[in-house]
Amino acid sequence: MSPASYPSRLLEEAVNEFASLPGIGRKTAFRLVMHLLRRDSAEVKRFGETIIRLREDVCYCNVCHGISDTPVCEICNDSGRDSSVICVVENVQDVMAVENTRQFKGLYHVLGGIISPVDGVGPSDLTINQLEERVRGGGIKEIILALSTTMEGDTTNYYIYKKLAGYNTEITTLARGVAIGDILEYTDEITLGQSIVNRRQFSVAPRS
Amino acid sequence: MSPASYPSRLLEEAVNEFASLPGIGRKTAFRLVMHLLRRDSAEVKRFGETIIRLREDVCYCNVCHGISDTPVCEICNDSGRDSSVICVVENVQDVMAVENTRQFKGLYHVLGGIISPVDGVGPSDLTINQLEERVRGGGIKEIILALSTTMEGDTTNYYIYKKLAGYNTEITTLARGVAIGDILEYTDEITLGQSIVNRRQFSVAPRS
Repeated sequence: MSPASYPSRLLEEAVNEFASLPGIGRKTAFRLVMHLLRRDSAEVKRFGETIIRLREDVCYCNVCHGISDTPVCEICNDSGRDSSVICVVENVQDVMAVENTRQFKGLYHVLGGIISPVDGVGPSDLTINQLEERVRGGGIKEIILALSTTMEGDTTNYYIYKKLAGYNTEITTLARGVAIGDILEYTDEITLGQSIVNRRQFSVAPRS
Repeated sequence: MSPASYPSRLLEEAVNEFASLPGIGRKTAFRLVMHLLRRDSAEVKRFGETIIRLREDVCYCNVCHGISDTPVCEICNDSGRDSSVICVVENVQDVMAVENTRQFKGLYHVLGGIISPVDGVGPSDLTINQLEERVRGGGIKEIILALSTTMEGDTTNYYIYKKLAGYNTEITTLARGVAIGDILEYTDEITLGQSIVNRRQFSVAPRS
């Protein structure tokens, strides 16, 4: 479809906006716009306003740098949590993933990305200095590095480890091993090798 | 991801809005929202405003019932086009598809759908009566039925044919260069162009 053929400028502009989103092509964008045209006017207005409000009003927690509605987020504000343990994650999705496990009662630190020279992301683009400040502030017993187990994740882990090595803080990473539900035959050899080296005492425990 | 675990209400609302679009799940919605958060604030504001303006300001052409920025659309207003030939299509995407073939210089009539009892769409939900009024107004030599070659398209063709049979207007359909089962919007323009050039007298014939 050539852009010149749109019967309405409003329609074309809306298609352009949706097509600017990642993974949304012009056909899909058109379909979404036609869907909005069939929706109730008040609903569509709320949609537009929600997007504007999101970008204008969202803030980032002054402590963990995660997305928040308030200057300090609910988790960082929760006196019931263990403020001596900080779980370092890449982004807010990862905070939500760890929270959903209900296995962690400490605080978080959101890096806002991962060191990736290919994508032009260096340490100064992340909140690593702010993490060091939190550690320097004292009272932090343990830093859990919970980044993706990729090359970039390993690089970032190492960078943070070197940065924090001088402080009296234990630095741990997520256990690496065979995931629940994995078929051994199809597990990659590095994971399998590490899970053999780091094998542990057998115990009859529930899976979850 | 349980909805309760969103770190921000603004974030959650934005994810909900995107996830309400057809074909967009919660994971994709989250990805789109995170993308918007990284975009320039002015850009996101324009996105939201474009959506609101689209729904509030868009109008439908009083003549062909297609989407338009003005009470009578550019095509219906174009004195260089042949107003004695009307091409009947399902929706605006189809107007754009036919326009892109550059094989048609008449006017359009947008039905706003297709007769589909399964989806609860009957003749009264479409602009078939308005089409009959245009024909009753006189000066229409030919009606080209350019609907998808599906069961619903055939049903709609037949309904319109019966409705307009009493008028002194030739009724043609697209040449069956379009494969049975094809959706018009996705047909390549050469096939579509040829099928307009080789349109033929409407006849009630079995599909096979």
